[in-house]
Formats: sequence, structure tokens, C-alpha cells
Amino acid sequence: MKKTSQLKTLIHSQHLEFLMEAHNGLSATIVEEAGFKGIWASGLSISASLGVRDNNEASWTQVLDVLEFMSDATSIPILLDGDTGYGNFNNARRLVKKLEQRNIAGACIEDKLFPKTNSFINSKSQPLADIDEFCGKIKAMKDTQHDEDFVVVTRVEAFIAGLGLKEALRRAEAYRQAGTDAVLIHSNKSDVTEIEAFMKEWNGRLPVVIVPTKYHTTPTNRFMELGVSVAIWANHNLRASIDAIQKISKQIFQDESLINVEGRVASLEEIFRLQRVDELQEAEKKYLPSK
Amino acid sequence: MKKTSQLKTLIHSQHLEFLMEAHNGLSATIVEEAGFKGIWASGLSISASLGVRDNNEASWTQVLDVLEFMSDATSIPILLDGDTGYGNFNNARRLVKKLEQRNIAGACIEDKLFPKTNSFINSKSQPLADIDEFCGKIKAMKDTQHDEDFVVVTRVEAFIAGLGLKEALRRAEAYRQAGTDAVLIHSNKSDVTEIEAFMKEWNGRLPVVIVPTKYHTTPTNRFMELGVSVAIWANHNLRASIDAIQKISKQIFQDESLINVEGRVASLEEIFRLQRVDELQEAEKKYLPSK
Amino acid sequence: MKKTSQLKTLIHSQHLEFLMEAHNGLSATIVEEAGFKGIWASGLSISASLGVRDNNEASWTQVLDVLEFMSDATSIPILLDGDTGYGNFNNARRLVKKLEQRNIAGACIEDKLFPKTNSFINSKSQPLADIDEFCGKIKAMKDTQHDEDFVVVTRVEAFIAGLGLKEALRRAEAYRQAGTDAVLIHSNKSDVTEIEAFMKEWNGRLPVVIVPTKYHTTPTNRFMELGVSVAIWANHNLRASIDAIQKISKQIFQDESLINVEGRVASLEEIFRLQRVDELQEAEKKYLPSK
Amino acid sequence: MKKTSQLKTLIHSQHLEFLMEAHNGLSATIVEEAGFKGIWASGLSISASLGVRDNNEASWTQVLDVLEFMSDATSIPILLDGDTGYGNFNNARRLVKKLEQRNIAGACIEDKLFPKTNSFINSKSQPLADIDEFCGKIKAMKDTQHDEDFVVVTRVEAFIAGLGLKEALRRAEAYRQAGTDAVLIHSNKSDVTEIEAFMKEWNGRLPVVIVPTKYHTTPTNRFMELGVSVAIWANHNLRASIDAIQKISKQIFQDESLINVEGRVASLEEIFRLQRVDELQEAEKKYLPSK
Repeated sequence: MKKTSQLKTLIHSQHLEFLMEAHNGLSATIVEEAGFKGIWASGLSISASLGVRDNNEASWTQVLDVLEFMSDATSIPILLDGDTGYGNFNNARRLVKKLEQRNIAGACIEDKLFPKTNSFINSKSQPLADIDEFCGKIKAMKDTQHDEDFVVVTRVEAFIAGLGLKEALRRAEAYRQAGTDAVLIHSNKSDVTEIEAFMKEWNGRLPVVIVPTKYHTTPTNRFMELGVSVAIWANHNLRASIDAIQKISKQIFQDESLINVEGRVASLEEIFRLQRVDELQEAEKKYLPSK
Repeated sequence: MKKTSQLKTLIHSQHLEFLMEAHNGLSATIVEEAGFKGIWASGLSISASLGVRDNNEASWTQVLDVLEFMSDATSIPILLDGDTGYGNFNNARRLVKKLEQRNIAGACIEDKLFPKTNSFINSKSQPLADIDEFCGKIKAMKDTQHDEDFVVVTRVEAFIAGLGLKEALRRAEAYRQAGTDAVLIHSNKSDVTEIEAFMKEWNGRLPVVIVPTKYHTTPTNRFMELGVSVAIWANHNLRASIDAIQKISKQIFQDESLINVEGRVASLEEIFRLQRVDELQEAEKKYLPSK
Repeated sequence: MKKTSQLKTLIHSQHLEFLMEAHNGLSATIVEEAGFKGIWASGLSISASLGVRDNNEASWTQVLDVLEFMSDATSIPILLDGDTGYGNFNNARRLVKKLEQRNIAGACIEDKLFPKTNSFINSKSQPLADIDEFCGKIKAMKDTQHDEDFVVVTRVEAFIAGLGLKEALRRAEAYRQAGTDAVLIHSNKSDVTEIEAFMKEWNGRLPVVIVPTKYHTTPTNRFMELGVSVAIWANHNLRASIDAIQKISKQIFQDESLINVEGRVASLEEIFRLQRVDELQEAEKKYLPSK
Repeated sequence: MKKTSQLKTLIHSQHLEFLMEAHNGLSATIVEEAGFKGIWASGLSISASLGVRDNNEASWTQVLDVLEFMSDATSIPILLDGDTGYGNFNNARRLVKKLEQRNIAGACIEDKLFPKTNSFINSKSQPLADIDEFCGKIKAMKDTQHDEDFVVVTRVEAFIAGLGLKEALRRAEAYRQAGTDAVLIHSNKSDVTEIEAFMKEWNGRLPVVIVPTKYHTTPTNRFMELGVSVAIWANHNLRASIDAIQKISKQIFQDESLINVEGRVASLEEIFRLQRVDELQEAEKKYLPSK
């Protein structure tokens, strides 16, 4: 099945489905091997791994270059965390073209202003996009896609901005009418009350995606009861790798030796396996002259 | 001190010094925070993290893009694992120009053929570069650098290719005469005998760099006794991150929940700290109009 | 002299100086050979030559890639037509860092909103930037530059937006106080009246740059009398090349032959000369083994 | 029709067909508007326009970036002048994947060594690729393409290297058996004798492509009589633009004025038309909120 169709199926699945964060070709490969059906290309994780901030410091084509490596390395669909679409409707529709060329299955855009700030930083002071302008952006993206299964998810930041349920619903409904395939309701509360309130009033008008980074103690069962379509584990591979790199760098720095390290890290052979060295070795037999 | 001068000082230090591998801006930042004085931009790690093989599948400018993020994020010098220089002398001197622009302190080139294969894969069947051709490449690089402290390290693959001590010495001496700043003697034996043999005969003609990936059980003391200048911990941050990402992805996939995850990974705040979010917040106070 | 210092000298010259447009490494080389002291890296020309619109369709790093080739190919300074700085103050200061790395001597930013529209299209309907926000951007750029001679030119779009002299002066003065090195007064009238009015009131507070694309019939003498510092010939190399390519393509298409072409175009040898093939041939003698 | 199918149809046409050189999105657009059915993405022209030499100074992904702009701007097929495939069979098959993603219809590879030198410079001293190794590269490319109509053209440099007809035929036949879709017989003689000799012996085993840059006085009729499938006008748009830019830059430099220029170059409106500004204006009406 095409990657776009895979993602569309996930979004419309009767069961709660999951996307796992990845931020480069390697982590994307591991996510697929772990069994996940789809990848969340997190803006926070990608910017952090590059070494810049989640404020559109990397250009959108630099993000695209990361995505291309991720997509080439995997066969499951990728949903891009596409910030605001990197400008106005014209930038957003250009993004769709470029994503389709690179076989990225969908893009999630959020109703904030370019350049964006991460939703977990000073959230209340971040202005939201004008609804009409943002609906035009959604329409432009949907009109641009060549593959009918390309997925546009629209992220509603009303709760994050402290504007409450009514504004969240007003925006979600406008985005639905503009043609989005799903809405992502974002909340930075440590409990699930905002999501609950939204789901009750939303009443299944379109699939709903959530990101339980802050309300991580909520049992997944609760998301199912609420009728959530997709939950995104949004940055945990990055966070695991930060922890691991900090520990191993500290250990080696202190020991001035690898003596306490070898068994604690992946083997060289495991790198080679993940890189699919065997495929190249087979190809060399086929395409290089025998000596 | 300029990054180039920092690296040159490391190379010529009376003590054994260490470079720690990094493969993106984030891991580079962590290496600096751990206390290391310099960074090894590993070709294996960079290619693996991108999701491709260590056979020049990523173009040299794609590697350069990674390096630029790494250099911008850190204040310690970076030595690039520059494969064969990505072509002939002309490509290699072009590389030097581009590295200097991006404030990369030095490049290590190896006496193999483009496109390269990782030295730990089928090592004996990999042909080495013609010595004269390779010396011309070294000369071209040294003649090209604008900053007199830019460092060219030349990696001798004679042991890896199974050609023995005599060839290793012959090549190292030729590269010395061509103007390299240091030689990297590579060995894939699990003990340090090849390095020992080389160091004895080499007798301090130029600083020597080693990569103890395969002979990791050798006490670091031994490297000091032998008079090694720099030891490179060449891929352990990548390997730590692979292990960590595999474990966390597996856990979350099985649990379908973050319940067992939060305390085991770096916090969101730690990502923000590594991204230097505070600097931007200060700058916003300074440069954005007060509302 | 450093490129930045060259540009700064031009801006502060007692005589009227000129910048000539270029849009890639080749045209930049030709501009230098023609005798010009500086290059205008036109946003319109660069976007058009890439095949996209002058509305930030190319990402800022794609523009940067073009600039890098232009700078590497030349020894005269380049002033980038940097649109709005590609976002807010943070994007603009990031731009300055990247430009300095690539040896670009200065950037001109304009007081419009991202994504921009070319000033000669529907000019009256384009909103201008908030003055305070824009002054913060100028300050951030000036605070970021490492090289004290890096030049920030600020383009005032008040006339273009139909807001008149008073607004033009108010903005120019605010930008002066924010620290810009020069102001570019843009006018799309076919005569020089707006420029005259501005120059009279401005009274030499800072150097003034103009772009006489629309008032091209005004004798250059008049610019001197008015005390203009720099005139930019902003897009004529691109326009010459469009005309030439259209004519030659049409001719060859109709003739189905090169018979009427050879004498009318540059020779192959001229391409090779512009590419400095001779330098490589000399280098090959020096760095390649003799066979 | 898909671009690949368009190119395949051209190659197999009963009539002599033509490809016209372009080197960026703008020249590609003009080539299409002139009526041509296909575009030759010349390595010489692309490198020269970037400002570097035709010796793989630009990385293969930098060339790819140029191609992407060219392809996005046009609806006729592009045949890439792909040098040696930028490395070995593995680099070449990676190239095919990337070209297909960007909707490039085919690649022409030549039997020389990486990094390449332009065929019109010191041609006799350039060694050719090993035939078996090169046939493996062709096979790898053909096995990699997903679209069955993607075209691989193989350029035979035997005449250029001074090795004569027999070697040209031996190589062409080997490449045919390896699966190439067409052979490009290159000659740097000022008459068509080498091509004639080849065509006679080749006897239509596969379509033949020629590049009459050096034998430009030969009437096109002669190519038809010989049974040539495609003639490439390989660098004339670049050469026309060099001539035009040199003249206009010189004129403006001397005049210090635009007075003699305006009527001799394309108008601003013509730039806007080529950039399809009207499409964006229509889209703005559709997707931007009315004010």
C-alpha cells in the first residue's frame, strides 16, 4: 500500500493508533523495526538534533532534507510536524508538492504565526493565526496534493494559548469545513481534562489526533474511551538518545577509556545491520567485476 | 583561541589527548558539555544517523551541512573524518575551503579509493590509493588552507589492508614528507600489537592519532607509554543512542503508553536547555517590541 | 581589503558608486570582470533564475547556496537583497551569521512582511512592517555581526506603499537610530521626484542607496547632484540573459541546426576561461603524479 | 504522458528529434516555450552557471538541487548529463532513485573516471572506465529504476580518447548488452566522419544520440540520413547568456547609466510572466481572506 494510503488508513482506523517520533534516518529505521505503523517527524526533535531551536531556525528545505533521508530509509508513512507551513498558503502548498516528491505521507500544520515557538514555551503569549487566513492555507494544501490520500492534519492551539474550549471548537470546525483530514487537539495540561471536554463536544466530526507529552500519566485506555484516533509519542526517542549520549560521553570522559563501555552500547555490527550493509555486499557481487 | 589553533595544540600536546565522536549538532553539544576538548565528526556515525551507508552515499555537501550545524553549536574544534577527500586532489582542496568557511578545524583523509568502504568491512579486499597520487592530495590540501593552523591528518590503512608494518611506515613517511600534520594509524586487530610495532619504528617523526574501536580493552596507559598523541573514541555516542532508541521504542510499542518512560529519558526542559532557549528569550526581550 | 571593508568603503565613498546585479556564480564573475566594484545579489533575479517567484518560494538556505557560489567565484563584495530577513529578528540575525561565514559583505532588508511580494507587483496593497519590530531586527543584525565592517542596508518601502514622504522620512530616521549603515529609498515612479524630495529632507544623515529600475531615464548626473551614495543596476543581467536565451532557443528550434548560431554566442573556450580551467591545469601538473 | 514516457518516445521516434540545453529553472522554462520536446541538463552549463568547473566540483546533490528547480518549472522531459554517475554503481543507482523522485526522465552516463574532466579539454589524456565495471553500473541503474520508462543513455568516449572506431563499437555493444536504452557517440572532430563511421557499423542496434557542438557546420539533414535518433544542442543557451551578460555589464559599466539598456533587454513584466506571477495572483484571490 502507498505510504499516503497507509497513513490515511491509520487516521481512519476504528482502533486507537500510534505514531512514534523519529528525527533522522536512523531513528526512523528503528521505529519501523519496533513495529510502529507510522512515524511522527517532530519539529522539536529534528531541530534539537540538528542543534538549533524549534523556532524555524533551520530552513524548511533543511527540514525537507532530513525528511528525505527518513523516508528513503523506511517503508511506513511519515507525518511531518510542519509548524505553520513555513509561511503563508503559498509556502504551505509548495511544501505539499515537495513532501509528495519525497514520499512523505502527510503534514500537520498548526494555527500559529511564522516563525513559530514551541508550544511548551511561554505558550500563553503566542498569538494564533487568523482563522480565515488559516483556512485558506488548509484549502490551498488540499487543492495542491496530487495523491488523493495525502493527509493534512490541522493542529488547534487554542487550549495552549489559554483560549478555552469554545475557541478550540470554533477553530476545529472551521478547519474541518476548510477540508482538513483530521484535527490535532494540543494540550499542555498534565491531565486529560481539556481533551475530554473537546472530544465530548466534537462528537466524531473528524478523526482526532493527540500528543500526550504532558498528560503522559493518563492511561491509554482513556484515549480509546474518548474516541481518539491517533496518539503521538512525540519526542521520546530524542529524549532517550540525549540521556544515553550524556551518560556515555560522561563515562568515557571520566574513564579516559572504553573499558566500561563496550557491552553497554550497540555493536558495530548492529550499525552495519541497520545500514543494510548486507544489501550492498550482495549488490557488489552482482554489479562489480569479479577480480 | 581559534578552533584550528585549539586542534593544533591538541595534536601537539605532550599529553595523550582525546577526541569524542559526534554526528549532529545535539551530540556535538553534549560532547562539549562533557568536557572533551575536541570532536571527531565520524563518517560512519554521520552516515548511519542520516540513514545511509558509509560508502559515500551521502554527498560531500550533505556531510558539510551536518558539520555546519555541529560547528555552529559548539566552541571546541572538530576534526572531520573526511574519507578519501571525496575524489581527487581538486575535490580535497575544495573541501578544505569549505571546511574553513564553516570553522571546522581539520580534516582526516584516508589512503583508499572513492567511493570508500568502512574499514571494518571486508577490509583486506579494499585497494589502497597510489602513494604519489595521495601525496599530491595532501600537498594540495596544505597549500589551500588559509589558516595556518588548519590541521590535515592522514590515515594510513596499510594494516587494515593486511599489508604490514613496512608498508605502513613507507606510507606514513611519504605522507609526512608531503606535509601532513599528523598520521592516524588504523588497526582492526583486537590487540595493540600493530600500533606498538608502528610507534617503535616511527619514533616520533610526527604526532600519531589512533582509533581504539577494536582494541578497546587496551588500557589507556599503554597508549601514553607508546607516545600516542590523540586517541579517538570514534562511534560510541552513536552506538549509545542506537541502544537507547531501540529500547525506548520497543518499550513504548509494547506498553502502548508512556507510563514506564518519563523518568528514564531526558526531560523536555533538558532539550530546551541544550537548545539554549534561554538565550532566545533574553533576545526577545531585547529585540521584540514590548506589547 | 576584506570584502566587508570594500563594501563599507563603497557606501561611504564621496563619489556616486554602483552595484551591478548578478544571480549566480557565472554572472557574478562577469560583473567583476566588467570592472564593477560590487555586486547586488538580487532577490528577483535569483528567484527568477532558479525558476520560482520572488515570494520566498526558494528557502533562505537555497538562496544562501546561490550566494556561496557567487562569493567563491569573485573577489568583490556582494550585497544581498535579503527581503525581510526571512522572518523575525532571530531569523535575521541567523542570516547575518551565515552570510559572514560565506564572506558576503552585507545584507539589505526591507520593511515588509514575510513572505514578501516583489515591490513592482500590486505595491499599494502590501502592508509594511511595524516600525518598532523592524528596528529590533536591525539592532539584532548589527549586534550579531562579528566583522565590524559588515554592512546592513535598510530599504524603506514607504513610497512603494503609497504612504508618502513623511512616512518615508519617519521610517528612515527610525532605522538610522536603530543602527543601519545606510538606507535604500525605493521608488516605482518613472521619474525621480520621490527620491529628490527624500534627499532634500534627509540631508545626508546616512548614506542613501537607490534602485533606478523604474526611473531609468534619469541622467546619472542627477543622482550625483542629489548626493546619492550608491545606485544599483538591479536586474539587467538577468533581463539580458532572458532575451538572449529566448532568441537563441527560438533560432535553433526553427533552424533545427546550429548553422546560424556559432558566431553569435560565446565560444566554448570562453566558458572554460570563465571557469578558470587554466588554474586547474596548472594544479594538475603540481599535484597529480606524472604518468 | 509521463515525462519518462515522453523521453522514451523521443528516443525511439522515427524522426530525428532534438534536446535543447538548459541550466536552471529559467532557461528550462524558455526551452519549453520555444517548442522543444525535451531538455538536456548539461553538466558543463550547470557547473559553469554555478561558477565552478566541469570536474565534479559541485557535488551531485548540488546538481540535483538545480535539476529539481528545472523539473518543477517545466512539463517536458529532462535528460541529465550525469557525468560518470558520480562514483561507482552504488552511487549511480542512488542517483536514479533521486532523479525519479524529482521527475527527471533519464540520465546519460559516460565511460570516464570520477572526478571527470570535460571532454573538450585534454581529451586524449583522459582514461576511460573499465568496460566490465561500467556495464555493471548500467545494469545497476536499469535494475534500480521503478518507472519502466526511465531512460539510461550511455555515452561512449572512445573517439574522444583517440581510441578509434573499433573501440567505440566494442564499448557501445557491451553497453547495449548491459541494458542501456541508447548510446551517445561523442566526437570532438569538426566534421562528422567519426559519427558516419560509427552509424554505418552500428546499423541501428539501438537508438543513437549525438552532440554536434564541434561539428556544428554539418547540415542536420546529414544526421537524418545517418539514422541518428536525437541531436543535442548542448550548451548554446549558456553561451548566449554569457555573451549577453558580458555585453550589458560592459555597457552599463561604461555608461554609468541604464539609458542605452532598457529596450535591449527583456522587460520586468517578461520576468514576471516567466515566473507565472499571474497564477499566484489568482491563488491569492482564492486562498487569502478578502480585506
